[in-house]
Amino acid sequence: MNYCSHCGKPVTHRIPDGDNRHRYVCEHCNRVHYENPRIVAGTIPVWNNQILLCRRAIEPRRGYWTLPAGFMENAETTVEAAVRETLEEALAEVTVDGLYTVLDVPHIDQVHMFFRATLTDGQFGAGEESLDAQLFGYDDIPWDELAFPTIRETLEHFIRDQMEEHFPVRLGDIRRKLGQ
Amino acid sequence: MNYCSHCGKPVTHRIPDGDNRHRYVCEHCNRVHYENPRIVAGTIPVWNNQILLCRRAIEPRRGYWTLPAGFMENAETTVEAAVRETLEEALAEVTVDGLYTVLDVPHIDQVHMFFRATLTDGQFGAGEESLDAQLFGYDDIPWDELAFPTIRETLEHFIRDQMEEHFPVRLGDIRRKLGQ
Repeated sequence: MNYCSHCGKPVTHRIPDGDNRHRYVCEHCNRVHYENPRIVAGTIPVWNNQILLCRRAIEPRRGYWTLPAGFMENAETTVEAAVRETLEEALAEVTVDGLYTVLDVPHIDQVHMFFRATLTDGQFGAGEESLDAQLFGYDDIPWDELAFPTIRETLEHFIRDQMEEHFPVRLGDIRRKLGQ
Repeated sequence: MNYCSHCGKPVTHRIPDGDNRHRYVCEHCNRVHYENPRIVAGTIPVWNNQILLCRRAIEPRRGYWTLPAGFMENAETTVEAAVRETLEEALAEVTVDGLYTVLDVPHIDQVHMFFRATLTDGQFGAGEESLDAQLFGYDDIPWDELAFPTIRETLEHFIRDQMEEHFPVRLGDIRRKLGQ
């Protein structure tokens, strides 16, 4: 951030009066430009004991498999965001069965939230941001080709929990490993 | 938003190519300025079967009672945000017992997340943004003087669930009522 989005003058990066963190501040119109984490919302879409995954057509991690998910937009709920992303990325309609994982990813200022879901009619396909979409049995998850740590963590929990058919909400965080 | 925060030129508000929503777009440097919901994180701090509430010293809803909560910051987790806000607003140290409510508030682009927590030593006080901090028995909650609908919803769930000592994560949303 170089300029004030309100008045167009250059911003400075300093701790505002009464605050304790560095912010982008406009010395001309006195606005403080806060930056906050973003939510990534997605689903675990299930059909006949299989999970629908998408192969990413875009960076980062192009070619790797992911659960359908993306940035939550203003004016929608987390559930609505997860359902919309599933439709956009996997061309699949789902009914949501419940919140499942809430995974903080503080080094990239994100919180990932995944919902358990069921395909409504078994239909799916590759959306614009996907190269492919495919159902995988619980024993056939492409563990070595998953796109992100939160996808792995969500799938690991889910596959363990579905054996007991009990799905408590799982809270966790993914920290940057040393050297990364 | 009037100006591009990167290059300082005026922005337009239009649907970018390949998108389906209006965004602030810089026609000079081609940056798209996305806006996303923010997370408000807080705790339900318990001590000897009482809940710690704060009376707000700032607008909105100055003078009304709230659970300690505030905007999650970059580079922290939801739990860290909730614990930090509890220390700032109620001068109270807590240990977190689990995620409890996740409440979408789409008309103000927020998601509120409350964690069950226990005061570590019973100490508390009014932080800079609070006029007062006080412990309330479950039968003495000031229901008519609560600051926000998500506070009411979280407390209603909590007081019901504590009777059975079972606290499943509660997902919900607060919609704007007609006429508001």
